[in-house]
Amino acid sequence: MERKVLVEVSARHVHVSKEHLDILFGKGYELTVKKNLSQPGQYAANERVTVVGPKKELKNVTILGPVRKATQVEISLTDARTIGVIAPIRESGNIEASATCKIVGPAGEVELKEGVIVAKRHIHLTPEDAEKFNVKDKEIVMVKIDTDGRSSILGDVVIRVREDFASAMHIDTDEGNAVGITGETYGTII
Amino acid sequence: MERKVLVEVSARHVHVSKEHLDILFGKGYELTVKKNLSQPGQYAANERVTVVGPKKELKNVTILGPVRKATQVEISLTDARTIGVIAPIRESGNIEASATCKIVGPAGEVELKEGVIVAKRHIHLTPEDAEKFNVKDKEIVMVKIDTDGRSSILGDVVIRVREDFASAMHIDTDEGNAVGITGETYGTII
Repeated sequence: MERKVLVEVSARHVHVSKEHLDILFGKGYELTVKKNLSQPGQYAANERVTVVGPKKELKNVTILGPVRKATQVEISLTDARTIGVIAPIRESGNIEASATCKIVGPAGEVELKEGVIVAKRHIHLTPEDAEKFNVKDKEIVMVKIDTDGRSSILGDVVIRVREDFASAMHIDTDEGNAVGITGETYGTII
Repeated sequence: MERKVLVEVSARHVHVSKEHLDILFGKGYELTVKKNLSQPGQYAANERVTVVGPKKELKNVTILGPVRKATQVEISLTDARTIGVIAPIRESGNIEASATCKIVGPAGEVELKEGVIVAKRHIHLTPEDAEKFNVKDKEIVMVKIDTDGRSSILGDVVIRVREDFASAMHIDTDEGNAVGITGETYGTII
């Protein structure tokens, strides 16, 4: 049975809380949808912010909506080095004692005490696909990705299963570049 | 038999020809050694240049000495995207019809007509280690690298055997970050 999954490369982005959105864009501001993402209900917003580290800043970082409980900044290890922060490799939502930064919006600034992470590679699966692939939520798998010149097998990939997911593997730009991903690419869970 | 090799992450760098060094730093200028590299005779120079693409520039890019026949700029795919060039994944020295850029030094500028590449991952081996590992020059192998959270097997790794090499695998910063390399790390040829 083919255990193939679409591989999507996530560029750096920010999730914001309602409270922080108020500070960054003004009281009562609402995010506007630029582009829907593969995960149902998730979207890239038109709104952008600057992420400031001790060494440098990253301008025009996309906000992903809708708002979340806690603000979270997801960058690559290349970005982390560029702006001068030590960001841990974590699953989304696991931000306790992660790295700090300043976020600057058109209406104000937020000093983030924690929330800067490098996303751990993962696969979103519907319960149907998880059953079909014979894998469980939280299981760690390896994924083989064949490309022209940088074929790789990525280990330490976390399976995440939820009713409202669309099946797709998410890796960051360092990983996408290391594997040489261009265009639509599928990986095979092995 | 253990086929272990040290994995070294190469940051972006430039190799310059004598002719271009004259333009960038002044007629008759000679590179000065900042730090010797693992490959015998190779060194990071104190001299740095700016690599300029159509979108952005990379400042303070290290020159690796000694001078070579042709100028070559080795950047990551992340860098390529940042500065706005489409750089091919190539073995060092294979620069025909690769990407272009401008290089700026304290004494002058060079419009590079070709020479910007993303280095193909490779392993330098002494003839003794090649024999011990049972691999040949130009052979393509896979290398397993275990790290905390980003263990990977990198394929499409080119073996290069030469008398004056020190045995070491070279990957770029995207690859080093994708594998989560920190500190001294060894890979296993599989």
